[in-house]
Amino acid sequence: MSVVTLEKCREDIRKQLDNVVDFWLKYSLDRVHGYCLYTGICLYCYIVQILVMSSFAFYFRGFFTCIGKDGKIYDELKYVWLQGRQVWMYCRLYRTMDRFHKPEILEAATVGGAFLRKFARVSSSSGQWKCAFCLTRDGKALKVQRTIFSECFYIMAMDELSRLTGDKDMQLEAEQMMEQLIYWVQVDPSGLGRPQLPGEVPINSLSVPMMLMCLVQQLTEGRGQEVAQKYKELGNWCVEQILQHIQRAGTAILENVSVDGSELPGCQGRLQNPGHALEAGWFLMLYGAQSGDKEIHRTAIRNFVELPYQYGWDKEHGGLFYFLDVDGHCPTQLEWSMKLWWPHCEALIAFLMAYSHTRKPELLEIFSEVYQYTFSHFPDAENGEWFGYLTQEGKVALDFKGGPFKGFFHVPRCLYMCERILDDLLENKD
Amino acid sequence: MSVVTLEKCREDIRKQLDNVVDFWLKYSLDRVHGYCLYTGICLYCYIVQILVMSSFAFYFRGFFTCIGKDGKIYDELKYVWLQGRQVWMYCRLYRTMDRFHKPEILEAATVGGAFLRKFARVSSSSGQWKCAFCLTRDGKALKVQRTIFSECFYIMAMDELSRLTGDKDMQLEAEQMMEQLIYWVQVDPSGLGRPQLPGEVPINSLSVPMMLMCLVQQLTEGRGQEVAQKYKELGNWCVEQILQHIQRAGTAILENVSVDGSELPGCQGRLQNPGHALEAGWFLMLYGAQSGDKEIHRTAIRNFVELPYQYGWDKEHGGLFYFLDVDGHCPTQLEWSMKLWWPHCEALIAFLMAYSHTRKPELLEIFSEVYQYTFSHFPDAENGEWFGYLTQEGKVALDFKGGPFKGFFHVPRCLYMCERILDDLLENKD
Repeated sequence: MSVVTLEKCREDIRKQLDNVVDFWLKYSLDRVHGYCLYTGICLYCYIVQILVMSSFAFYFRGFFTCIGKDGKIYDELKYVWLQGRQVWMYCRLYRTMDRFHKPEILEAATVGGAFLRKFARVSSSSGQWKCAFCLTRDGKALKVQRTIFSECFYIMAMDELSRLTGDKDMQLEAEQMMEQLIYWVQVDPSGLGRPQLPGEVPINSLSVPMMLMCLVQQLTEGRGQEVAQKYKELGNWCVEQILQHIQRAGTAILENVSVDGSELPGCQGRLQNPGHALEAGWFLMLYGAQSGDKEIHRTAIRNFVELPYQYGWDKEHGGLFYFLDVDGHCPTQLEWSMKLWWPHCEALIAFLMAYSHTRKPELLEIFSEVYQYTFSHFPDAENGEWFGYLTQEGKVALDFKGGPFKGFFHVPRCLYMCERILDDLLENKD
Repeated sequence: MSVVTLEKCREDIRKQLDNVVDFWLKYSLDRVHGYCLYTGICLYCYIVQILVMSSFAFYFRGFFTCIGKDGKIYDELKYVWLQGRQVWMYCRLYRTMDRFHKPEILEAATVGGAFLRKFARVSSSSGQWKCAFCLTRDGKALKVQRTIFSECFYIMAMDELSRLTGDKDMQLEAEQMMEQLIYWVQVDPSGLGRPQLPGEVPINSLSVPMMLMCLVQQLTEGRGQEVAQKYKELGNWCVEQILQHIQRAGTAILENVSVDGSELPGCQGRLQNPGHALEAGWFLMLYGAQSGDKEIHRTAIRNFVELPYQYGWDKEHGGLFYFLDVDGHCPTQLEWSMKLWWPHCEALIAFLMAYSHTRKPELLEIFSEVYQYTFSHFPDAENGEWFGYLTQEGKVALDFKGGPFKGFFHVPRCLYMCERILDDLLENKD
């Protein structure tokens, strides 16, 4: 890709990001009290907010995330993963990109954050920090997962929002929940609510150290030495746990390994998730760059970026497979051969970051291939935003823009990260 | 379809049934001690069995169900739904079809039953009757679902096996577990282990009354008046619960409704599962025929057989969709447009039974259409057995013969039921 092409690429990415931000601001906010037709502002909310000065005004807010192809809400449930991610994304855009430093982004972030803070946590016998997975429109817990991920996205949202508002309580809450999370992962998972069964063996699932590493990066970013020191050991532990997933003499990343880093039997042990590996790849790359650890940085690119592309890319139809079996058996996940939006988002970030760190042209070539596939298949030119789920052949299989697992997160994060990396690249184009 | 075609059809079905029975006998039995090369019998097991006269000899048995396209075991986990269903199927074949009244079928049934009885139930704080969902090869519980279905298939297996062995304890055990199940469904579900959450509303999910009705038919069949009387009320309750799923002035079967039979909001409320409706259809048809309730029988055919075919059949590519949304939104299940083997199996039984009960030619026409799609897409002429998962266009998407949810059940039950119905039809062809 020449510099001219990179400039065109940045322009397209910028347009897509604007489009996606507009789409979600337009359709996703649950303004139950109705807009003021002239200002677009919910007057009732603002008046109540001023009068009561409490989160009461936000009672019926938060984000709709089940949004059809043309913006229609097809389900009013509020998924906590997606509420947290959306708050995080708005904060990040508002805080770090001039053109998104606008009142409506700030409002979306704070109102979404208040909803999350008021309703996401469930009081349960298993500990006060557990968050629901899914809430009713008015914030009643409907489903609780026995994993750590709702809590992860809650922490991301609270930490990022505290940077916007300067609210120290919120930052403290994020750190306290983080302590609980570390306890569940490193000491005793019983508080998550899953009974220990005799046939179970403890597992190192890539998603867990990956998410914890992401949180360490979130909580420490720009917070100074004391906070950095507090999470240093955890960061190292995450790296060690992530590296355990390099298996078969460095030729494969396996999604699940034993806690001592050996291969597990059966489908679970042979499972590969190229999108997860690529996402872990750019987290690791950031860690390597920030800590100055060149070996980790090289490993990140070789094993977690180039390798998952090699085995995960569909040579026949293009695009990244969702799941694979390292021995070539058919995965048991019905969606294994589908092309999902988010692995492509992670691949774009990973390859562009790897190129910007190394300037190796072969990495830019692969970025370009993934970019072309992604931009020609996922964005919806007619109604805006991206489709999320394609068949192996690249046909749209599910046409909604938001669903229980697709929110305002992977697409805008990818576009945001890529735009910033391209800004840097094009500024230093020598 | 003329009589000649029905005869050809019965011949094909019979061949397929033989093929499928052979496939599972050959690959599925976990004979850890090895075969005697001359007799095909595991000598070690038989000697130990004779010596110890206990279930100890069966310690390492049960069925593998993760079986690749060519018969290779790709995972050794033992799924309890599938263990129970396989025992049931072997017993039924042995007990009711002359050509399967063979020692190897009897052995498979009894050895599988012993494994199930020894290992499926987990002792847990939530009650002594809970069964695991998944076991390790040697029978240790690995996963427990917070639903009733493992227990349902355990009951089916035990009841059917008790008919083979005359074991009264086993029959009693099936009935005792049934009592527990009725308590969970009708009185208090808390023993299933799912905490009640403030946003949850109790739901009537079609699968529950459908499975209970299947169990009532299983437990009462040929057991005399006393047992029939014991489950009469429950049978009526199941019918009432199933009929609640007829919604929108009789134009739709919805998978989930409220407990008072009204439509639920959101995706959950709009969900349609044509395969489930068709399966419920032939259970209801049997109920109507056995009880002499002509109105129920007509409703079964009109609303649960003809209707799901009308909205569930893919007019473009043929085959039954897996999930649909009654308002035409895109379902959120990634596999919604795939063509799975089991809805086609249920459709074959439902339409052939409906035709045999009514002799309406239009029902035979639809049977013929489903039959042609099914027999030209699912059976694997090369390696035997059926593929289970096709894309919307009818391409094999997952090529294994057995997996966590596909075992020795829907295919042989369908072939068995259809062969028997065809036997009746062809005998009375007037």
